[in-house]
Amino acid sequence: MDRVSVQTNVLKANQEAARENRRLFEREGTVVINLMSAPGAGKTSLLEATIRGLRDRCHLAVIEGDLQTDLDAQRIRDLGVRSHQITTGTVCHLDARMVARALVEFSLRGVELLVIENVGNLICPASYDLGESLRVVICSVAEGAEKPKKYPVMFHKADVVVLNKTDLAIASRVDLRELEKNVREVNPKATVFALSCTTGEGLNAWFAWLRDAIASRSITAAAGT
Amino acid sequence: MDRVSVQTNVLKANQEAARENRRLFEREGTVVINLMSAPGAGKTSLLEATIRGLRDRCHLAVIEGDLQTDLDAQRIRDLGVRSHQITTGTVCHLDARMVARALVEFSLRGVELLVIENVGNLICPASYDLGESLRVVICSVAEGAEKPKKYPVMFHKADVVVLNKTDLAIASRVDLRELEKNVREVNPKATVFALSCTTGEGLNAWFAWLRDAIASRSITAAAGT
Repeated sequence: MDRVSVQTNVLKANQEAARENRRLFEREGTVVINLMSAPGAGKTSLLEATIRGLRDRCHLAVIEGDLQTDLDAQRIRDLGVRSHQITTGTVCHLDARMVARALVEFSLRGVELLVIENVGNLICPASYDLGESLRVVICSVAEGAEKPKKYPVMFHKADVVVLNKTDLAIASRVDLRELEKNVREVNPKATVFALSCTTGEGLNAWFAWLRDAIASRSITAAAGT
Repeated sequence: MDRVSVQTNVLKANQEAARENRRLFEREGTVVINLMSAPGAGKTSLLEATIRGLRDRCHLAVIEGDLQTDLDAQRIRDLGVRSHQITTGTVCHLDARMVARALVEFSLRGVELLVIENVGNLICPASYDLGESLRVVICSVAEGAEKPKKYPVMFHKADVVVLNKTDLAIASRVDLRELEKNVREVNPKATVFALSCTTGEGLNAWFAWLRDAIASRSITAAAGT
């Protein structure tokens, strides 16, 4: 079997596992976010801000994907939120089976929002459906305005694009409007937030949107019972 | 054949192609840098600064690796330097055979320094030897101080680690000393430069080091003829 056939089989098996995960998430009424970005764009920082903003209003849990170390899971646990660490070794993305294995011991009972923080990589995770409800891609302003054009698959498949570190825009000499225009060229349908986890600018709009997403899901889940 | 065996075969074939490339580079007396980093850490900016700093003293050429677009190759050509674009589609790294194919039409005659700018990815390119003389990894200060611990394979294999965007350290709330300490914990042997392609701070030390690397290679090549 050649490399392409193996890759096709891997993605097919992943799709089956993702379908199982999605059924479980729907049964539990849990909104699940697959949070993706390049290394250092601010996935864990956005998670911490989101936990601080929403923990009094909704029940959150987190699955962390990293090559090594449980530094991120520890940051989440320090905020009093349940988190599970998946370490992938040299594997450059999470896949649906890794998430399924984590869910055997990590109960979703009562969890309204599960955030799965993927491995920091703007390419490979885009190919692996985890069964998520929403794909959220973070782009750090400091990475430059042309990133959506250069990594189009990741941006094209996103439901939400978060432009983080807006406080660094001037120092990084990046035009936020140009960055947003480049996102919209690759993906006209994505919801876009510009925010800074450091200053808090723009976070309220993101919180409000998430609360709406969770509320809609609860209504759907209640109607389905 | 299972996925692991396919991967093993792929890496073995890559190693053979890398050996061929290395022989060619040595025959031509060309110092070859495999330049790697996460998206937006400043590979192309460092290349532009290096071209401006060294073009009057040495003969440079560039191979650009990107998923799509030839934006980077165009930036290099705008500086009057010969560059060749490899677009990988969805492949998340360059491999030695892609470089070998590029070299069929891209002559190295007289080239003292060839920089191969890899696809923006802090994981997968680490596994693929291109036949380079030196592995240079860029870490943007804005990515945070803990990146070397979280992406250890890439940092462990580096000959040189460039800490770029030092001008953003204060705004990013990143302690440069902590970042450098984390690099040294993962890789005590790497040569480390802290610099800013925006302000020019620290670039002269990098230029001097590169000139030395090129001079040493020329001596070796002359002795070998």
